[in-house]
Amino acid sequence: MAYQLHYWPGIQGRGEFVRLALETAGAAYVDVARGDAKAGAGVPAMMRYLQGDAVQRPPFACPFLVDGRKVIGQTAAILLYLGPKLGLVPRSETDRLWVHQIQLTLADLVVEAHDTHHPIAGGLYYEDQKPEAKRRAEDFRRERLPKFLGWCETVLQRNPGNDAREVPRLVGARLTYADLSLFQVVDGLLYAFPKATKRVLRKAPRVAALHAGVPGNRRLAAYLASERRLPFNEQGIFRRYPELDA
Amino acid sequence: MAYQLHYWPGIQGRGEFVRLALETAGAAYVDVARGDAKAGAGVPAMMRYLQGDAVQRPPFACPFLVDGRKVIGQTAAILLYLGPKLGLVPRSETDRLWVHQIQLTLADLVVEAHDTHHPIAGGLYYEDQKPEAKRRAEDFRRERLPKFLGWCETVLQRNPGNDAREVPRLVGARLTYADLSLFQVVDGLLYAFPKATKRVLRKAPRVAALHAGVPGNRRLAAYLASERRLPFNEQGIFRRYPELDA
Repeated sequence: MAYQLHYWPGIQGRGEFVRLALETAGAAYVDVARGDAKAGAGVPAMMRYLQGDAVQRPPFACPFLVDGRKVIGQTAAILLYLGPKLGLVPRSETDRLWVHQIQLTLADLVVEAHDTHHPIAGGLYYEDQKPEAKRRAEDFRRERLPKFLGWCETVLQRNPGNDAREVPRLVGARLTYADLSLFQVVDGLLYAFPKATKRVLRKAPRVAALHAGVPGNRRLAAYLASERRLPFNEQGIFRRYPELDA
Repeated sequence: MAYQLHYWPGIQGRGEFVRLALETAGAAYVDVARGDAKAGAGVPAMMRYLQGDAVQRPPFACPFLVDGRKVIGQTAAILLYLGPKLGLVPRSETDRLWVHQIQLTLADLVVEAHDTHHPIAGGLYYEDQKPEAKRRAEDFRRERLPKFLGWCETVLQRNPGNDAREVPRLVGARLTYADLSLFQVVDGLLYAFPKATKRVLRKAPRVAALHAGVPGNRRLAAYLASERRLPFNEQGIFRRYPELDA
């Protein structure tokens, strides 16, 4: 049975991390909330899980995955679950936990990237928190972005064998969902903060090489060129507000 | 060999979630950074993992756990690893993933609680971001706190058997690390936002009952009464700034 992915239609958002894994593995899945509400899909189908009374273990928010009777929320938990099924993690439990730890750290970076344009409240518009956003974005560009991508660079540097690889890997020799997620984060950062991100990437050549090389994967490339890959926009996590970049 | 927990001395912080699990299980552990630097412990010992060149898989930040040759960062990943070893998760993989999903959601709440006093930058003082903190805290009290604790209440309500239990459980019939973490979060929220939290807890009686009942565990109670349990203070995640509560 195909996996069901539930996430807001219209943005890549956190759903995209799950989508990249499913697409790269060639897994059968339905992007439920992008479907037709008249046919029982769409946002109402997603809302039945989030707000209905019938789900014994309701996710706090989307994205969530439905696999038969299982309902799994939290992006990193979804990937922890899917990783072995999709062949996107190494064999050993220790390595899998390390992949997960990297994913959780990237998730922290995603929160901070989001909060540059929403430092006060997710429920308010950007226009209602512009001065605060400017302050937060400056700290993000100067302190946090270099720290996070610098850590990723260190991880890539210390993963044995990367020097001999055309495309470096975060963990082991084969592609993992953490590589896909780092690709996605860098892609989003280049969209939102092109100046700051390019500056940081000059000091993180392995991260840049991973971002450039990961789409060499045939299935991923096909997905990225498809209509299923929505463009970044100013409703998502990574937003291009020129006043927040420098 | 005893586990090594590495976390900032002087605050409960995120380290406390790991500490509660270790203490409740009666596990042998060393709180390294609280030890004596002259004896090879203390903050310098922690920094060797975070900043040194010798760790192949360096954590991004503390807390991290050292178990023999394994170094595991990210609070939720540490608990995922320790849960089965400490007897603080159910047997089935599905249930364990649900415990982890709850932990990740509580981790999101912890970030938001922290950012009420640091909405602009973790590297700046609270005094440098007071007006912004006031706005963010208001949204947190009105929107986020009720939403997060309301979700916890739903999870407790839908966990079969809780009506017959003196102390409700988030998952299954026995204590899990998610219960300990929800106890800790509520404890911190009651410290930081006593007015707002008590108001929310009146509509979340099961969460209140869990918070009141979890310390009935003998080992946990002994820990909470010990000097190892630091008091909450204004350097940690949960800070009592009366101007942020209402």
